[in-house]
Amino acid sequence: MPIDFTLTAEQRDLQLSARKFARRVLVEVGPATRHLPTPEARFAATRPFYEEAIRDGFLHRLIPVPLGGGGTGLLDLAVVAEEFQAVDVNVSLTLFATLLGLMPVMLGGSPEQCQRLLAPFLNRSGAPLAAFGFSEPGGSANFAAPAPAEGVRTTARLDGDHWIVNGAKQWVSSATGWGGKGADLISVVCRTDPAAPPDKAISVIVVEGPADGIVMERALESVGHRAHLTPRFKISSVRARKDNIIGGPGAGLQLVEGSFTSTAALVGVFGVALMRAAFEFALNFARTERRGGAVPIIEHQAVGYALADAKTAIEATRALSFRACHALDAQAPGAFELSLQSKIFGSETAVRVITDLMRVVGIDSYDHQLPLAGLLQDALAYPLFDGGNMGVRRRQLHMLLMSPGYDPLTAFAATG
Amino acid sequence: MPIDFTLTAEQRDLQLSARKFARRVLVEVGPATRHLPTPEARFAATRPFYEEAIRDGFLHRLIPVPLGGGGTGLLDLAVVAEEFQAVDVNVSLTLFATLLGLMPVMLGGSPEQCQRLLAPFLNRSGAPLAAFGFSEPGGSANFAAPAPAEGVRTTARLDGDHWIVNGAKQWVSSATGWGGKGADLISVVCRTDPAAPPDKAISVIVVEGPADGIVMERALESVGHRAHLTPRFKISSVRARKDNIIGGPGAGLQLVEGSFTSTAALVGVFGVALMRAAFEFALNFARTERRGGAVPIIEHQAVGYALADAKTAIEATRALSFRACHALDAQAPGAFELSLQSKIFGSETAVRVITDLMRVVGIDSYDHQLPLAGLLQDALAYPLFDGGNMGVRRRQLHMLLMSPGYDPLTAFAATG
Amino acid sequence: MPIDFTLTAEQRDLQLSARKFARRVLVEVGPATRHLPTPEARFAATRPFYEEAIRDGFLHRLIPVPLGGGGTGLLDLAVVAEEFQAVDVNVSLTLFATLLGLMPVMLGGSPEQCQRLLAPFLNRSGAPLAAFGFSEPGGSANFAAPAPAEGVRTTARLDGDHWIVNGAKQWVSSATGWGGKGADLISVVCRTDPAAPPDKAISVIVVEGPADGIVMERALESVGHRAHLTPRFKISSVRARKDNIIGGPGAGLQLVEGSFTSTAALVGVFGVALMRAAFEFALNFARTERRGGAVPIIEHQAVGYALADAKTAIEATRALSFRACHALDAQAPGAFELSLQSKIFGSETAVRVITDLMRVVGIDSYDHQLPLAGLLQDALAYPLFDGGNMGVRRRQLHMLLMSPGYDPLTAFAATG
Amino acid sequence: MPIDFTLTAEQRDLQLSARKFARRVLVEVGPATRHLPTPEARFAATRPFYEEAIRDGFLHRLIPVPLGGGGTGLLDLAVVAEEFQAVDVNVSLTLFATLLGLMPVMLGGSPEQCQRLLAPFLNRSGAPLAAFGFSEPGGSANFAAPAPAEGVRTTARLDGDHWIVNGAKQWVSSATGWGGKGADLISVVCRTDPAAPPDKAISVIVVEGPADGIVMERALESVGHRAHLTPRFKISSVRARKDNIIGGPGAGLQLVEGSFTSTAALVGVFGVALMRAAFEFALNFARTERRGGAVPIIEHQAVGYALADAKTAIEATRALSFRACHALDAQAPGAFELSLQSKIFGSETAVRVITDLMRVVGIDSYDHQLPLAGLLQDALAYPLFDGGNMGVRRRQLHMLLMSPGYDPLTAFAATG
Repeated sequence: MPIDFTLTAEQRDLQLSARKFARRVLVEVGPATRHLPTPEARFAATRPFYEEAIRDGFLHRLIPVPLGGGGTGLLDLAVVAEEFQAVDVNVSLTLFATLLGLMPVMLGGSPEQCQRLLAPFLNRSGAPLAAFGFSEPGGSANFAAPAPAEGVRTTARLDGDHWIVNGAKQWVSSATGWGGKGADLISVVCRTDPAAPPDKAISVIVVEGPADGIVMERALESVGHRAHLTPRFKISSVRARKDNIIGGPGAGLQLVEGSFTSTAALVGVFGVALMRAAFEFALNFARTERRGGAVPIIEHQAVGYALADAKTAIEATRALSFRACHALDAQAPGAFELSLQSKIFGSETAVRVITDLMRVVGIDSYDHQLPLAGLLQDALAYPLFDGGNMGVRRRQLHMLLMSPGYDPLTAFAATG
Repeated sequence: MPIDFTLTAEQRDLQLSARKFARRVLVEVGPATRHLPTPEARFAATRPFYEEAIRDGFLHRLIPVPLGGGGTGLLDLAVVAEEFQAVDVNVSLTLFATLLGLMPVMLGGSPEQCQRLLAPFLNRSGAPLAAFGFSEPGGSANFAAPAPAEGVRTTARLDGDHWIVNGAKQWVSSATGWGGKGADLISVVCRTDPAAPPDKAISVIVVEGPADGIVMERALESVGHRAHLTPRFKISSVRARKDNIIGGPGAGLQLVEGSFTSTAALVGVFGVALMRAAFEFALNFARTERRGGAVPIIEHQAVGYALADAKTAIEATRALSFRACHALDAQAPGAFELSLQSKIFGSETAVRVITDLMRVVGIDSYDHQLPLAGLLQDALAYPLFDGGNMGVRRRQLHMLLMSPGYDPLTAFAATG
Repeated sequence: MPIDFTLTAEQRDLQLSARKFARRVLVEVGPATRHLPTPEARFAATRPFYEEAIRDGFLHRLIPVPLGGGGTGLLDLAVVAEEFQAVDVNVSLTLFATLLGLMPVMLGGSPEQCQRLLAPFLNRSGAPLAAFGFSEPGGSANFAAPAPAEGVRTTARLDGDHWIVNGAKQWVSSATGWGGKGADLISVVCRTDPAAPPDKAISVIVVEGPADGIVMERALESVGHRAHLTPRFKISSVRARKDNIIGGPGAGLQLVEGSFTSTAALVGVFGVALMRAAFEFALNFARTERRGGAVPIIEHQAVGYALADAKTAIEATRALSFRACHALDAQAPGAFELSLQSKIFGSETAVRVITDLMRVVGIDSYDHQLPLAGLLQDALAYPLFDGGNMGVRRRQLHMLLMSPGYDPLTAFAATG
Repeated sequence: MPIDFTLTAEQRDLQLSARKFARRVLVEVGPATRHLPTPEARFAATRPFYEEAIRDGFLHRLIPVPLGGGGTGLLDLAVVAEEFQAVDVNVSLTLFATLLGLMPVMLGGSPEQCQRLLAPFLNRSGAPLAAFGFSEPGGSANFAAPAPAEGVRTTARLDGDHWIVNGAKQWVSSATGWGGKGADLISVVCRTDPAAPPDKAISVIVVEGPADGIVMERALESVGHRAHLTPRFKISSVRARKDNIIGGPGAGLQLVEGSFTSTAALVGVFGVALMRAAFEFALNFARTERRGGAVPIIEHQAVGYALADAKTAIEATRALSFRACHALDAQAPGAFELSLQSKIFGSETAVRVITDLMRVVGIDSYDHQLPLAGLLQDALAYPLFDGGNMGVRRRQLHMLLMSPGYDPLTAFAATG
C-alpha cells in the first residue's frame, strides 16, 4: 500500500472514542489523586478510573484478535496512547504496563499458556494488572552481559512442579498490584541456570499474584507519574507453576528484546502526547495573555517562532513514531531500527520541547497550577525508563550498525 | 487509506530507475565539473547529463498526467529527489528548478497557457530550462510587505500586446539559461501596478528566453551546488506576450505561496538525500578505518552513538518530509503546515547531522578528497534558499499559528 | 590588573567558610523540610537555618562596606552563592532575595534612607527579610511598556505623610514574611502617577512589614525551591512613609534595571552551583555503579563523554558568570551585556546539563531518593525568574544590540 | 591575584599593535590569494605577509623571554591570535603552527638545543617555518595505543651520528616549507624502538629542512584555510643529527601532550576570533539591510534574539578560553582540564554560531562575496584538527575524569 498518513475509519473511531473517554474520565485522575500524600495512596485512588477503562474495553480492544481481543496491531495502541497520555499519564501507564506485562506471553506463549494466562485480561471487568518484572535494584542496563558481569540477579529453580523464584525488582509498573502482594500476572525475568551464559540462562517465568513472597519495600518517589505505582520489592521464594515458563529456559533474551521493541515505538507516541498537551496549553496562553503588554504575546516574533519550532518537533516525532508502529505491524525489515529511533527521538524531543514551552509561558509555568511543569516531570521519565536511551537504546542501535549485514536503506526502501 | 510508509509498485519502480540513473549517469557530474574554474563553465558542463535526464523521461515523468506528463503527485518528485540528490545535487537542482519554474503555470495557468508553455518541457528531448524569477538583489524575505516597504521591485507595464518587464533578480536557478540570455521559460514575479497594495499589484508573467534584455551580471559564487547556476541578472525592457500573465494581475502572492509550498516539502527530502550520502560514507569509514588503533573505530562507543544519532535524525526527517508530500498530494488540511515543517526541520537537521558526521570521520573529512565537506557545503543552502527559514518559513508558521481558526490537531487527526 | 581567575585570600576564606557553613548547616534544610505538606510550612521550617546564616554574618558580610556591612562587591556574593546553592537552594534564595529586596535602597537610597532602612539587616541577629515587589499576577515582562499596555498595575498615591499602596504581586520571594503580613522591608514597584509615561510614573516605595493590608492569597506551588516562599498577595491600602520613596518619583525603571542587572550576573553562578552538585553526584555514581555490568559505568565511553561535556559546560558557565560579576564590580563598559549573558547562558545551560546528567545515571535518577531530579526542578526556575530569558533578558540584549553606539568589542577590549 | 578580566597595559599594547597589523597587512591576504588555483600557489603568495609579520616581531614577541624572545606567556598568544584570526586565518595559522613546531624544543629541549634550534626563529627576518610532524596518513587519533594497534608508523633508527627517519605525515601545517623540501624545523613524532611500548618507543626528533627525503605527495584540498598549506608527504631516509632528539628516547608521549595542551587553549581563542568576525558582519548587515521590508532587519525580534544568542556564546567562549590560557600560564592544577575544554567548547561553538549567523543574513550568505561562508569553512577545521574533539580531546577528558585523584573543583577552587 502507498505512503499514507491517514487513519482508517476503524482507527478514527478508536481515536474519537479514546479522546472522549480521556476527556470524560481520565481528566479526573489528576484532581482525584494530586492531594494524596503517598504514591501508594495515589495509585489506589486511580483504581476506579482503571476499572472504567477496562469496562469500556480499552484493554480488550488492544489485545490482538487472534488471542481473543479486538486489537489489529500496534497502531491501535498508538492511537489510544496519544489520546490518553495527552490527558492523564497515570492510568494510561497502568494500562500500557499491563500490556507490556502480557507481552512475553503474547509473543512467546504456547496456545495453552495464552488461553489460560490472558483470560482474566479479556473480561472487560475488574482491574486486572500485569507487570513486566525486568529491572532490578542496582540497575539492569547490562542485564545480558556475560560473567563476570552480574547481569540478571533474580533466580528461579525447579522444585517439583514449581519454580521457586528469589530476587528483587524495582521500577516495575504496578508490580505489587492493588493489594501490595503482587499483580495478577508478573512476567519475571530471571536466571534459571546459575552457570550458563545469558542466552541459555535467562528466562521469563509468569508469577501469578497475589503471592506471599512478594514483599513491597517502598514505592519509588518518582518525579512524575505521580499516581502510577513503581515499587521496589523483594521476591522471596515465590512459587510459580512449572508450566509458567514462557518459551522454555533461555528464551528470556529474545522475549525481553521483543517486548521492549514494541514499547520503544510506543514511547515515541507517549512523547507526542505530552508535547501535544503542552503545546495546546502554551498556544492558548500565548493567544490570550498579554503579560502587561499591549498585545497577546503570540504577536511577539520570538514567541511565535518558539511555538513554530515546538510544533515542528511534534510533527516530526509523530511522523517517526507512527511510522515505527506501522513498520512493526507490517513486520518490515526496518522495524527494529525505527522502533529504537522512535524511543530515543520521541522521548528526548518531548523533554526539550516542553522545557522550551515553559519559557514561552514564562515564570507562571513554574507554578503547579499550570500544567506545564507536571507534563515535563512526566516526560522526564521517557528517556530513562523502558531501556534508558544512554545505557540501552543507543547501544542497541550501535550494535545494529556494527552488524555485518546492516544496510542503512533498509529502514525505508526495503519496506517497499 | 491507512497509515503506511510503503512505496507503491510504481513508486518503487521509479525509485529503482532513479537510483540506477543516478549511479550510472549523475555520479559522473562531479568528476566532469569539479576542476572547472567558474560556475558558468561548470554549469555548461552539466548539460549532457541534464539532456540525458530529459531523454530518460525524468522531467516528463514528474509533470502531472492531466498536463501531459506522467506524474502522479509530489511523492513521485520526492522519490526521485532522494535518489538524485544522494548522488549529485547539481543536475538534480537544475531539474527541480525547472519544475519550480513551471509551477505557476501548472498551478494557475489557463488550459491554453499550459498547453502552449509546457509543450517544450514534455518532449523528452533537448535541455529545456525553466526558472522561477522571484528573488531580487537586496533580498526578498519581505516581498509581500506593504508600503513603505519596497517589496517586489521588478515591474511590468503593458505596452500594446506586450508586457515590458524591468528589474533585477538573483538566486534564480538556471535563469539565464545555457546561453546567458535567459531560460526557455522564466516565471517573473513582478509588480504590474505601481500604486496598488501587494495583493493587487504582484503578478507572475512568463518571459520566454532567450531575450535580449536578460543581462547576466555575474554567476553567484555559491558555497555548494558548484555546478548549478544561480545568476544575478538584469531584466531590461524585456518583452513578454500580453497573455503570458498567469492567473491575471494580482495573482502573484497566491502563486508564489503555492509554488513554494510544494518545494518546501521537497526540501526536506533534499536534506534526507544529503544526510543519507554522508551517513553511508561515514558508516563505511567507521567500519573499515582504525586510525592507528587496534579496532575499526565503529567499535568505539562514542562513534557508534554518534552514528546512531545521525541515523535517527535521518529517519525522523524522512518520515516528516514524505508525510508532508503525501499531505500535499492528498490536499489534507495540514498540508501547508507540514510542508513548512519539512523545509525547516529537514534543512537544519541536514546541516547539523553532516557537521556531526564530519567529526566522526575526523580531520580527513576536512579534505575535499572525501565527500563530507562537499555535502555540507551543498546542505548549507537548504535553510537559506527557497524562503529562508528565519525570514520566511518560520514567519509563515508564526502567521499560521496566529490565525484565528488554527487547530493544532489539524496536521494529524483531520487528515483522517 | 591582568586577566586572572584566582580568588584573593579574602575571597578564598569566604569560600571556605561558606562551604563549611553549607556542609554543616544548610545540608540539613532538605531533611528538615522535605516531608512538610505545604510551602508555608516548609518555609517556616527554614527559619532556624536562616537565623544561623544571619548570625554567622553571611548577610552582613555581603552588604557593601560603605553601607555598614563587610562586602567588597558582587564577586563576594558569587563566591557565597556557589557554595550555598550547591548544597541548598532554599535558604540561599531567601538570603539573596533579601539582598535583592535591599538593592533599590543600596543603589538609589539617600544616606538617611540607607541608614534607617538597612539597619535591621546589619545586626547579625534575628531573621530579617527583605523582598523586591516587582512581579504581578498576569505577568510583568512588559512592565515598562507604554499605554495602551497595562505595564505596572500596582499604584501608590500620596495621602498626607504617607503613600497608600494598592495592587497585587506574586513570585516575590519571602514577600509575606515569616508571619504572612509582610517582610520587614518590601521594595514595591508601583505607579505613582496614573497619567504619566512609564519613565515618569514608575517608582519604588519601601513598605515596612508586617502591615495589615498585605494579604497572602496563596503560596505558589513552585516546581522546585520547595522550602522557599513565593507568595501571591494583595496589597490593600498599605501605608508607607512619604520619605520611603527611593530616588524620587519616576526612578523606578532605573532602579529595577539596576537591581536586576546585579542579580542577572549572579543567576549564572546559581546555575554553576546546581550543575556542580549534579556533576559531583553523577561522577561519583559513574565511578562506583556497574548497573549489572562488569565495570563501573564511567568506563563506557558514552558515559565518560557525557560527563566531559557536562564539565565543559560548567567551566564555561563559571568563567562567564564570574567574569560578569567582576565586570560589574569594576564598572566596566561591558558589564550590563555580560550580566545578561550570564543569566541567559547560565540558567539554560544548567537545565540542559542536569537533564543530561540524569541520563548518565539512568532511571534511578527519576526517584527522588537521588538528588538529580530535585536539582533539575530547582534549576528550571532560573531561565524563568528574575526576568524571563524569553520575555525580558533576550529583549534587553536585543535592545542593546540595536542601540546606535553599540560596539561588540566593548565586552572585552574596553575593559582594558 | 584576584579574579579579573582586564588586559595589562602590555597586553593592551600588544592587542592594539596586532589589531593594527591585521587591519593593515593581513586584510590583504585574501585578495592576494583567493583567485589562485592551487593550495601551493596560495600558500606561496602568503610569504610576503608572513615575512612582514616576522619583521614586525610577532614571532619573536611570542617566544618566551627566557628562550630569547619577548613572550610572557600563553595569554600573549591569545591576544594576538584573536586579532589576527579575526582578519585572516591563513598567515595566522602559519605563525601559530611555527610556534607549535617549536613547542617540543621549548618544552623539552636542552639549553644547547634551544639555543641552536630556536636561533633562526628569533631573528625578525626571513620567513622561518617550523612544523609539528605528528599526524599520519590513516589517522593518528590512537597514536599512543599499544600493540596490536599500529599507533605511530614513522620510525627512526640510529646510524652513527644520525637518525634515519622513514614514514609519512599529513595535515602538518607548513611541513614541506616554502620550497617543498621541508620546513626549517620539523619536530617529527616517530618510533625509535620498534619493539618497546609507546611510552618507551615514541620520540620527537628534529629534522632540519630542506632535506632530500622530504617528498610532497599532495597539498590537501582543505575546506577552509585556503592559503595555508597542509601537505601529505613522505619521509624517505631523512637524516637528522643524533643530538636532535628532544628529551631523549621515549619522551614523545609527554612532548606531544604538552605541546597539544597549549594549543588546545588557543584553539578556543581561534573560535572566538572567527565568531567575532562573523558577528560583526552579521550585526552590521542586520542594522542596515531591509530585505525588501520597511525596517532594518535587526528590528525583527527573531533577528535580534539570534544575534543576542550568538554574542552570548562568543563571550562564554572568550571567558573560558582566556581563563584556560591564564591557568596554563599560572600552572594552575586545573590547567589541563580547562585547556581541553577550551578546545572542545570553542571549536564547536564557533561552527554552530557562524552557521546560525548565516541564517540571520539569509541566502546572500551563501555567496562567497560575503564573508560568512568562508568563516564557517575556516571554523569547520577547529573541532577536527589539533586532536579531533571526538577521537582525542573528549577521550583525554574522559581519562582525566576516570583518574583516581580527580577532583571536579580543581579547575576552580584549587587555583586559589
